[in-house]
Amino acid sequence: MTSSTYSLLEDYMRSCMKDSAHDKEHIYRVLYTALAIAETELDVNYDVLICACLLHDIGRSEQFADPRLNHADVGADKAFSFLSGHGFSENFTKTVCDCIRSHRYRKQNPPSTIEAKILFDADKLDVCGAIGIARTLLYKGIVGEPLYTLARDGSVLDGTTDTDPSFFQEYKYKLETIYDHFFTKEGARLAKTRQDAAARYYQDLLSEMRAVYENNAERLYAHIEQ
Amino acid sequence: MTSSTYSLLEDYMRSCMKDSAHDKEHIYRVLYTALAIAETELDVNYDVLICACLLHDIGRSEQFADPRLNHADVGADKAFSFLSGHGFSENFTKTVCDCIRSHRYRKQNPPSTIEAKILFDADKLDVCGAIGIARTLLYKGIVGEPLYTLARDGSVLDGTTDTDPSFFQEYKYKLETIYDHFFTKEGARLAKTRQDAAARYYQDLLSEMRAVYENNAERLYAHIEQ
Repeated sequence: MTSSTYSLLEDYMRSCMKDSAHDKEHIYRVLYTALAIAETELDVNYDVLICACLLHDIGRSEQFADPRLNHADVGADKAFSFLSGHGFSENFTKTVCDCIRSHRYRKQNPPSTIEAKILFDADKLDVCGAIGIARTLLYKGIVGEPLYTLARDGSVLDGTTDTDPSFFQEYKYKLETIYDHFFTKEGARLAKTRQDAAARYYQDLLSEMRAVYENNAERLYAHIEQ
Repeated sequence: MTSSTYSLLEDYMRSCMKDSAHDKEHIYRVLYTALAIAETELDVNYDVLICACLLHDIGRSEQFADPRLNHADVGADKAFSFLSGHGFSENFTKTVCDCIRSHRYRKQNPPSTIEAKILFDADKLDVCGAIGIARTLLYKGIVGEPLYTLARDGSVLDGTTDTDPSFFQEYKYKLETIYDHFFTKEGARLAKTRQDAAARYYQDLLSEMRAVYENNAERLYAHIEQ
């Protein structure tokens, strides 16, 4: 890839994320992590990989404004228009858009090319470990969701059985379960190196919160006349 | 304190924080922690303490809208109006307002009464440990500040010498240095039990980020034609 092509793609990515410092940081982490994973794989098309990494989240703001939209689909459509309109080849454009569309794979449409698998793994690595904790907490701040919710008896729920949105609920539902779903060996290996940091933080915060709320009703009602 | 007085104060606190789930959680953590600390101290006026804990952050939204304001001063003024207007005694009102005004002590106006010291310590404990990390990250999300900033060579700065706002900068400037500034023995003891959790998380996140950005320029420019 030429440096002017890189700048064109980077500028377009930045224009799609202009108000969000942490989203932009995420793009570069995904790019650098993808390049590190790529070194352990054969026959990687680096132009496709770099382009797909830079553009994979350009549909984020549309999904934020309307949660019914899937940012992977919106991003693939936006990338298709942008790349076609700037003279990239049909084959290159299609391969990049396939990577973007499958980076948020749930059940259908899994990543099929090596570039799509690397993008998927690099993106998921940013949900692992301490950085996954940090990004989840930044997001909870933005959308105004709490760290934890309380049981009827006033004790702190740990996210295992509670369903209301909270940091603990998201940790148990999403962050804790992500470590077995990688497509590349290097992605899986890197994920495992981060697993303890996330588990430790969750346990530290849960322990602190349970200590604060322990006997809180007794403590308070000792000084409140009924 | 009667339960109707408690409800009156709680409702007023909630009305001052209506859009912020995590700010409300903070108030209850401070209240429960203050009551736990109070059990280790003599001659605590629990009515003053409970009222001061509930109302200590009611000036937050004013400071958020105008950072030149000090929420401790705004909160004390609002509490004075509210308590005077609801028939609380002059002495009670003054003691509570003094607690609120000194809970954000920097150099002048340190907390003087035992209730003010307990409120100060309970509030500061919520900046210690894993909960201090969580609250800082929630806030960085709200104000759109990054996790870290980069040196000119593209490496991740650790917050020690960098001055631009970031999570790492705030950790080094504020979170790491807070553990020696408590007024009660129990506050200092509780803070120490949380210190390792915060230090560990900072180190985990820094290690992960430095690994991601290591050799990033070489990796990228190997595939970019200059």
